[in-house]
Amino acid sequence: QCDLTGWWENDLGSKMHVGTVDSQGNFTGEYHTAVSSAQKPIEPSPLIGSQHLDEDGQCTFGFTVNWKFSDSTAVFAGQCFAEDGGEEVLQSTWLLREKVDSLPSDWKATR
Amino acid sequence: QCDLTGWWENDLGSKMHVGTVDSQGNFTGEYHTAVSSAQKPIEPSPLIGSQHLDEDGQCTFGFTVNWKFSDSTAVFAGQCFAEDGGEEVLQSTWLLREKVDSLPSDWKATR
Amino acid sequence: QCDLTGWWENDLGSKMHVGTVDSQGNFTGEYHTAVSSAQKPIEPSPLIGSQHLDEDGQCTFGFTVNWKFSDSTAVFAGQCFAEDGGEEVLQSTWLLREKVDSLPSDWKATR
Amino acid sequence: QCDLTGWWENDLGSKMHVGTVDSQGNFTGEYHTAVSSAQKPIEPSPLIGSQHLDEDGQCTFGFTVNWKFSDSTAVFAGQCFAEDGGEEVLQSTWLLREKVDSLPSDWKATR
Repeated sequence: QCDLTGWWENDLGSKMHVGTVDSQGNFTGEYHTAVSSAQKPIEPSPLIGSQHLDEDGQCTFGFTVNWKFSDSTAVFAGQCFAEDGGEEVLQSTWLLREKVDSLPSDWKATR
Repeated sequence: QCDLTGWWENDLGSKMHVGTVDSQGNFTGEYHTAVSSAQKPIEPSPLIGSQHLDEDGQCTFGFTVNWKFSDSTAVFAGQCFAEDGGEEVLQSTWLLREKVDSLPSDWKATR
Repeated sequence: QCDLTGWWENDLGSKMHVGTVDSQGNFTGEYHTAVSSAQKPIEPSPLIGSQHLDEDGQCTFGFTVNWKFSDSTAVFAGQCFAEDGGEEVLQSTWLLREKVDSLPSDWKATR
Repeated sequence: QCDLTGWWENDLGSKMHVGTVDSQGNFTGEYHTAVSSAQKPIEPSPLIGSQHLDEDGQCTFGFTVNWKFSDSTAVFAGQCFAEDGGEEVLQSTWLLREKVDSLPSDWKATR
């Protein structure tokens, strides 16, 4: 089975909590990042996203984090893997969109 | 002002409709892609995401598309720009997560 | 045919000159960027890379730019397309690696 | 000090050999990938790139791999880190450009 509900922690020490996943695969939660490029202190920030509901427990998913302590937005895309011992591992990549002041600066806005 | 509500079209001919943005910046909508790397016919697919609510009309945003015709998930991160004539333009980048069968294939799962 | 030798200009106004492509597909050249996130004034910077030598004129290529005015390095990967009128167009994407002071900052080093 | 010359191995089991780095920071070498999305058998493939020559041993670098067994080209951008014990670690990200048959397929050409 594949259900993102619960707490997850990544290699950098960031944690996230995903609430109930509805029948469409949608969910909300909270992201507690351990790293930041912003000036202000880090705060837990809301996340919203969706996952596939494949029965093989290897679903892909995506979510958006709306940072409360900056103008930036992050998106994550990944997949859940069930390891031999039954433990679930999430593999994901991300983009961080920083706010820039005008279109000519757009090229450097995304990490 | 910065509000994603409405219809948007990109350079590739893909269209999306974003519904009402709530007081947290969250929204849902539907993505009509013009391009696909999947075998099955394209279908409109649900999207869910959030945007900042900055008053300068240059907000960053992110959303997840849960493809109905494939096991993949796409995420988009971008920013709204108000051009001189008052027209709004969205600049965004994306990641497409394709389902792979096991962890050793993870390296190639994301475009 | 597919040969990167010559001058190219991109949408942002950056220009590059590619010298002779050798029999292995290797080349050197100079990149004149129009945009920068560095503090120092922009200077033309050396590039080095290689291309495939496919006869259909749609070769893929890659190159590295070693910025002279910063500690950063950029890499570009792309493909040459011959348009109907015979004009050649390069499509490419890039990564910009910025120098960070230690491994814990590695997550934010690449745009 | 920071010198890429020598053998390196990554988490996926891919290995590369970098030859002498010249006074400009340029180098050539050979990449032995452990993973592939191509049909043909994997072969060692030539790489060419450059590195900064910063004295602090934390230089950024980039290189291009011209795959011999496919039409694709990969680029890597990264940084060398000297760990406490004196061991050097490379952190890098990559793009894989696959050949597509025409411009409308360009959107999906890069992983």
